[in-house]
Amino acid sequence: MDPEHLPVINNYLDANEPASSEARLSRMHFHDNQRKVDYVLAYHYRKRGAHLGHGSPGHSLAVISNGETGKERHGGGPGDIELGPLDALEEERREQRDEFEHNLMAAGLELEKDLEMYEIKAGGSIAKKFSAILQTLSSPLQPRVPEHSNNRMKNLSYPFSREKMYLYNIQEKDAFFDNATRSRIVHEILKRTACSRANNTMGINSLIANNIYEAAYPLHDGEYDSPGDDMNDRKLLYQEWARYGVFYKFQPIDLIRKYFGEKIGLYFAWLGLYTSFLIPSSVIGVIVFLYGCATIEEDIPSKEMCDHQNAFTMCPLCDKSCDYWNLSSACGTARASHLFDNPATVFFSIFMALWATMFLENWKRLQMRLGYFWDLTGIEEEEERSQEHSRPEYETKVREKLLKESGKSAVQKLEANSPEDDEDDEDKLTWKDRFPGYLMNSVSILFMIALTFSIVFGVIVYRITTAAALSLNKATRSNVRVTVTATAVIINLVVILILDEIYGAVAKWLTKIEVPKTEQTFEERLILKAFLLKFVNAYSPIFYVAFFKGRFVGRPGSYVYVFDGYRMEECAPGGCLMELCIQLSIIMLGKQLIQNNIFEIGVPKLKKLFRKLKDETEPGESDPDHSKRPEQWDLDYSLEPYTGLTPEYMEMIIQFGFVTLFVASFPLAPVFALLNNVIEVRLDAKKFVTELRRPDAVRTKDIGIWFDILSGIGKFSVIINAFVIAVTSDFIPRLVYQYSYSHNGTLHGFVNHTLSFFNVSQLKEGTQPENSQFDQEVQFCRFKDYREPPWAPNPYEFSKQYWSVLSARLAFVIIFQNLVMFLSVLVDWMIPDIPTDISDQIKKEKSLLVDFFLKEEHEKVKLADEPAQRSQGGGNRSRRSRAASSAPSGRSQPGSIASSGSQHTNV
Amino acid sequence: MDPEHLPVINNYLDANEPASSEARLSRMHFHDNQRKVDYVLAYHYRKRGAHLGHGSPGHSLAVISNGETGKERHGGGPGDIELGPLDALEEERREQRDEFEHNLMAAGLELEKDLEMYEIKAGGSIAKKFSAILQTLSSPLQPRVPEHSNNRMKNLSYPFSREKMYLYNIQEKDAFFDNATRSRIVHEILKRTACSRANNTMGINSLIANNIYEAAYPLHDGEYDSPGDDMNDRKLLYQEWARYGVFYKFQPIDLIRKYFGEKIGLYFAWLGLYTSFLIPSSVIGVIVFLYGCATIEEDIPSKEMCDHQNAFTMCPLCDKSCDYWNLSSACGTARASHLFDNPATVFFSIFMALWATMFLENWKRLQMRLGYFWDLTGIEEEEERSQEHSRPEYETKVREKLLKESGKSAVQKLEANSPEDDEDDEDKLTWKDRFPGYLMNSVSILFMIALTFSIVFGVIVYRITTAAALSLNKATRSNVRVTVTATAVIINLVVILILDEIYGAVAKWLTKIEVPKTEQTFEERLILKAFLLKFVNAYSPIFYVAFFKGRFVGRPGSYVYVFDGYRMEECAPGGCLMELCIQLSIIMLGKQLIQNNIFEIGVPKLKKLFRKLKDETEPGESDPDHSKRPEQWDLDYSLEPYTGLTPEYMEMIIQFGFVTLFVASFPLAPVFALLNNVIEVRLDAKKFVTELRRPDAVRTKDIGIWFDILSGIGKFSVIINAFVIAVTSDFIPRLVYQYSYSHNGTLHGFVNHTLSFFNVSQLKEGTQPENSQFDQEVQFCRFKDYREPPWAPNPYEFSKQYWSVLSARLAFVIIFQNLVMFLSVLVDWMIPDIPTDISDQIKKEKSLLVDFFLKEEHEKVKLADEPAQRSQGGGNRSRRSRAASSAPSGRSQPGSIASSGSQHTNV
Repeated sequence: MDPEHLPVINNYLDANEPASSEARLSRMHFHDNQRKVDYVLAYHYRKRGAHLGHGSPGHSLAVISNGETGKERHGGGPGDIELGPLDALEEERREQRDEFEHNLMAAGLELEKDLEMYEIKAGGSIAKKFSAILQTLSSPLQPRVPEHSNNRMKNLSYPFSREKMYLYNIQEKDAFFDNATRSRIVHEILKRTACSRANNTMGINSLIANNIYEAAYPLHDGEYDSPGDDMNDRKLLYQEWARYGVFYKFQPIDLIRKYFGEKIGLYFAWLGLYTSFLIPSSVIGVIVFLYGCATIEEDIPSKEMCDHQNAFTMCPLCDKSCDYWNLSSACGTARASHLFDNPATVFFSIFMALWATMFLENWKRLQMRLGYFWDLTGIEEEEERSQEHSRPEYETKVREKLLKESGKSAVQKLEANSPEDDEDDEDKLTWKDRFPGYLMNSVSILFMIALTFSIVFGVIVYRITTAAALSLNKATRSNVRVTVTATAVIINLVVILILDEIYGAVAKWLTKIEVPKTEQTFEERLILKAFLLKFVNAYSPIFYVAFFKGRFVGRPGSYVYVFDGYRMEECAPGGCLMELCIQLSIIMLGKQLIQNNIFEIGVPKLKKLFRKLKDETEPGESDPDHSKRPEQWDLDYSLEPYTGLTPEYMEMIIQFGFVTLFVASFPLAPVFALLNNVIEVRLDAKKFVTELRRPDAVRTKDIGIWFDILSGIGKFSVIINAFVIAVTSDFIPRLVYQYSYSHNGTLHGFVNHTLSFFNVSQLKEGTQPENSQFDQEVQFCRFKDYREPPWAPNPYEFSKQYWSVLSARLAFVIIFQNLVMFLSVLVDWMIPDIPTDISDQIKKEKSLLVDFFLKEEHEKVKLADEPAQRSQGGGNRSRRSRAASSAPSGRSQPGSIASSGSQHTNV
Repeated sequence: MDPEHLPVINNYLDANEPASSEARLSRMHFHDNQRKVDYVLAYHYRKRGAHLGHGSPGHSLAVISNGETGKERHGGGPGDIELGPLDALEEERREQRDEFEHNLMAAGLELEKDLEMYEIKAGGSIAKKFSAILQTLSSPLQPRVPEHSNNRMKNLSYPFSREKMYLYNIQEKDAFFDNATRSRIVHEILKRTACSRANNTMGINSLIANNIYEAAYPLHDGEYDSPGDDMNDRKLLYQEWARYGVFYKFQPIDLIRKYFGEKIGLYFAWLGLYTSFLIPSSVIGVIVFLYGCATIEEDIPSKEMCDHQNAFTMCPLCDKSCDYWNLSSACGTARASHLFDNPATVFFSIFMALWATMFLENWKRLQMRLGYFWDLTGIEEEEERSQEHSRPEYETKVREKLLKESGKSAVQKLEANSPEDDEDDEDKLTWKDRFPGYLMNSVSILFMIALTFSIVFGVIVYRITTAAALSLNKATRSNVRVTVTATAVIINLVVILILDEIYGAVAKWLTKIEVPKTEQTFEERLILKAFLLKFVNAYSPIFYVAFFKGRFVGRPGSYVYVFDGYRMEECAPGGCLMELCIQLSIIMLGKQLIQNNIFEIGVPKLKKLFRKLKDETEPGESDPDHSKRPEQWDLDYSLEPYTGLTPEYMEMIIQFGFVTLFVASFPLAPVFALLNNVIEVRLDAKKFVTELRRPDAVRTKDIGIWFDILSGIGKFSVIINAFVIAVTSDFIPRLVYQYSYSHNGTLHGFVNHTLSFFNVSQLKEGTQPENSQFDQEVQFCRFKDYREPPWAPNPYEFSKQYWSVLSARLAFVIIFQNLVMFLSVLVDWMIPDIPTDISDQIKKEKSLLVDFFLKEEHEKVKLADEPAQRSQGGGNRSRRSRAASSAPSGRSQPGSIASSGSQHTNV
């Protein structure tokens, strides 16, 4: 505590500053340059004008301003009338802060005030330059990718207990807990410290929600783009992970976890595993596509369609303005759809269903492995305890209810003896209290889904009407289909992108209305709602094309009309699969490109630019020495706050849907997903390292509800793929033709077989083609369906072929679904959830620990006469943490653990 | 330690005995009448004849005989030549015992020798009459059903730690751990004590396997049928649980758990839940059946079939000897099958699929609840540790391998440098070592399954040939079908029962060949194999009737022949469902009745009788005072050893299959299962209380692999029921007829619609009925199939109706399966695995514990100056155990815990 740094309050204006900034570490430390900063609290404070001299400006805790921004937002209303109540509020908040901070110090934390910020520090007075040591150690040892704890060496660890402190391998008191653990400890205390003045709320989250503080965050480790050679974790992460230049490298997962905590570490581990799993599926997808390309010349049906010799005269595609047409004119789409509609796709979609299972199983294993190396195996209790904290909004609501109840019950109790069993319900929200919220939720979600559907229907109507309009004009008639399909898909894409953002906000709003009790339920419900809405939004046009388009057309002579004169749209002659493929590729690619480029890169850049511009235009009260190097907490304050991983996961999950759900119709989906993800990993990394405030290091041992959603999509994809192959593609009709109807066992004649006859004279009056320019006399036209010919006893009824093909399709669905489900269960069963080496390790470690404690017990019994040798400790470290056993020092290789373990067993 | 009991060695012959037997408690105690007996070890010891005076008869540890039986078995070979090596073996074993027992005492156990037995006692010298107190306390308080710990009161518990002994509410040092815990502690020590002389084997299990000891078991609490008023847990269990007279009562689960341990407690809890879940399904099943009875008169198809007016002339059922027949003659079966084949069964099978899910979910919840009240929540580690113990057979095999390897590698090392990485594999069995076992397993299982199938096929052949033979004889012709079906089913039943026993033995043998490493893998693999074999055995005839019978018949004019002249069998005109129903009911009822009565009641009775007879016929060396009251350990020794719960679970799982898999065809299955289980509960209870030695109290927190099997059956049942309804029953054809073909929307004309025409003149030469006595000229006969009529362009091909009905059937399967699966997932998701009250309780308890420890920590810091106040303890109790917190004394109600918890939070 040298006196040079005592005037912390106006430190920001102090000219002495440069002297201390020589030691770069000071930016991460208290002004005594010794105690490390673990956490930062920020709050707004309106600077008082000269006209308002009351309050307590000399009070040691109330002299805080957040600089420009703070002034900005509140400076808008400078009237005296408004200032009065605002000041009262300000005073109230100040007092609440006072109490809260007092409680924090009582809990063992150390605070330091800054003109800008407070710094909070976990107890323990002698601070050491831990990170400096780590840096100097790690930079030469791990030159490129730092693999501190990755090298299969693991220290024996045990939940930290102050009582047994003498057991741990504490070489350095301040380096014993790493930065993330330190800030987690502080965050835990912040969460648990009560503030009775603020309605007895618990913890910093409530205080932030009530605007008493503005932000609370731990510090970044330093600058990521500092020019010097000095290394910190952040810079290391930037150089080795958060740049596009290193896209080919593995992610330094352990360093990510160390810096950002387990939750974010698990996200990137998951993303990495997913991306690497996309590689084999991309390869096979490309092979399937190439197989389609290679066999395109051998495909008999498309050859038959393109053959001008056996010309099929097709019925007109619209009333009046459309003419009869020759099937060979649709040769192009027929050939194109063979690229995606060939037997290889069937095997590919079985493969992808198993791939999804394998991926999930391997994720479980990786999760276990990471959980083991990160010491997360016994974390349940902690998680459960953190679940207990009610959200501030919930507390407010309960308080409101209690107030209302107390008024009512006072009345009630006068009138009659109110039943006793009500009391239990008074301090929590019952079903009755929640009913309006739930009702609102259900109604809104149903409304949103209906909205999505009606937009899809709107696009259909757009397609039908535009197609009809364009058909009237001869010039545009030739490429009607392409124009209409392309514009419609782009409309769909734009609508999806807009609704995606809206639905995200709506889901948040709805979840707030619901007032879930804890942060975890809040997050889960938000995710479920957002997923439901975004899933419906992204996939409903695709489901329409896959399963409904062209199935309600009717038949020549009795078409189905949407509106007067507008027939339901048909599929292209090559089948709907081609269209599905176009739809999928445009929506998937468009969504990824636009969301990545605009929302993830563009918008943050714009925000930054905007803020910078604002800063420059309003220099206002900027201090004279504004150009001096700002403190780390100022730099961090200027970053975007961290708002959770939900959007990142959501994007990937929707992509996972594209990769699995319709893979039968678009085998190239994995390739595009892979290309996107290679960029996505670095994009997210960059965001976390350079653009966001450092997030609280949250300990969690799994990815929570996302795993359930993933496995749900995986299961759903089986039935969807079964239906795509059976119903949308021509795979089954071809098989049936080949083995039941073909004369020589080949597909020759298949096209003829799928086309029914229609007697042109039976066309309804007014629907015949006007000015037919077809070159031959037409008596029968053909249409794609299995119906009885005009000369049969019951013309135009579904024929026997129709029913037999339908049976085959349905049988295929049953077989495919049950086979794939069985194989998935088998894969699930065969791959153990816990990798063998890890479970062996855990066992060994456990028996080693037992032996270790038994030995210690023995020694203690021996030494029972010499009492009180071990009243060490103090401070505030009774949390669980990683700790090294002092027993087998220097021999931490698995092998040596095993051998020493078996030795101990016999002791 | 009164001197009266010092000559323990010949206690059995001691005339002083009656003096001590006045105090009945002494039968449960050491001969000092103070220390409680926790465990018994038994071994055979050949009494030396006078001619063999060597050895060391005066040795203090070697004077043990198991009385009659011991003599019996070894007395067969009294030759001197044989006795020599036998004695050497005996001596060897004695030395091994000596060492083992010495090690046991070193581990803190106390042993006492008996002429018959050793008694082992957990450390702690001052023994108290714990059970007596419990008895005197419990008998007046819980007069009928003892609910000691059932009354929703729960003490705060925490894994016992000797270090914090001062924290626990130890009122009485010997009553602190209950009997089950005491014997578990002893068993744990027995399992871990090494015996270097016996090839360094670990634990009592290996020693028993090597015949060094004969048995090891804890003592029963006393006699269950003692006439007096004195109560012990066993007697209580007998009176309130293990009698048929109390079949209507709930099971005293907590007492069962206390007496038999958690594993057996969980079995009975599971059985109880299953039985109570059968009640609603029985009720609904009966309602469905009654609905069938009530609507039988309104069923149009069966009325049409019975109507003599519109007579359908059916084609003959066999070649030559069978005549044309009138459909109305099959009226009876048609009416009967309506009882089971009506729309209500569809809803019932949906209900039962959801019922299975509900049952499993509720079991998970009950398991959690019991786990909480029984303090099993943190048991994983313990389980994992117990997995580590290798089975003796595995150790032997590894030793053999090592011996072989060492010989080989000595040679190898001379020849070349053997690779180093081999070393890891030497101390465990590799894939190569296991290959013969695995191969043997696969081959045997395939052979067994093939055997089952061929027996089923044999029964089919029996049916076909017998039917043909009986048809030749006019006298028997009238009731051919009944005779054949009934005899065939009985043959099936007998075969199933015999193979069931054989397959049980085969599965055990195969698993032994496999040499699994640990007891747990042994049990799991045995269960899987036995389940697979028994499942195939029990269900293959049923599957045949449900899905294959009558489907490969061919059609008149081109029948399918099994052998020359023997046609494949057809279903009865009412559909195969009726036959399936008969098959199901006979196999299910027969299996249950016979297995319960003969195998579970009869065989043990016979065994007992046999042993008694043998004892009487060979009085041999029976002691003169044989009539005196035997010690408890003698009584227990004469009981059957406990061999695990596998047969009990297996029986119930197979029954669960009958209840769920084919419930669509036999809605009464739940009723029969319910009736059986009400008896089964008491039967098993009686067995455990009166006929078996007391099992080791095994702690486990779930029912293990059985849950997976149950949920697998539940999932399988969905698709099976879908197919039964769609394919076996007439539900879908009726619907299709009603909505597509019927003229007036009713089922009138359905029977006609399902029958195809056949032109009699096209019957093959030699297959026409000889001596037709049919009363009218037959031109066309009818058969049940959808085929084109003889006058169609392609006669006898499958008609359009066939394909449309098939499509409808398959579509139904898809819809039913996916709907039910979705509903199951929904039910699974909606019912939380942990009951809310329990999870609240756990949370409260946890925070209470944290607060409690924090408070204690504070106090300790305060008292840091006064050292060594708490060096208590000794003994051998560092195991985990239930313990009561001393903090909120007297206020253990959940409510008070909650309130004190929240108080502490603010301290």
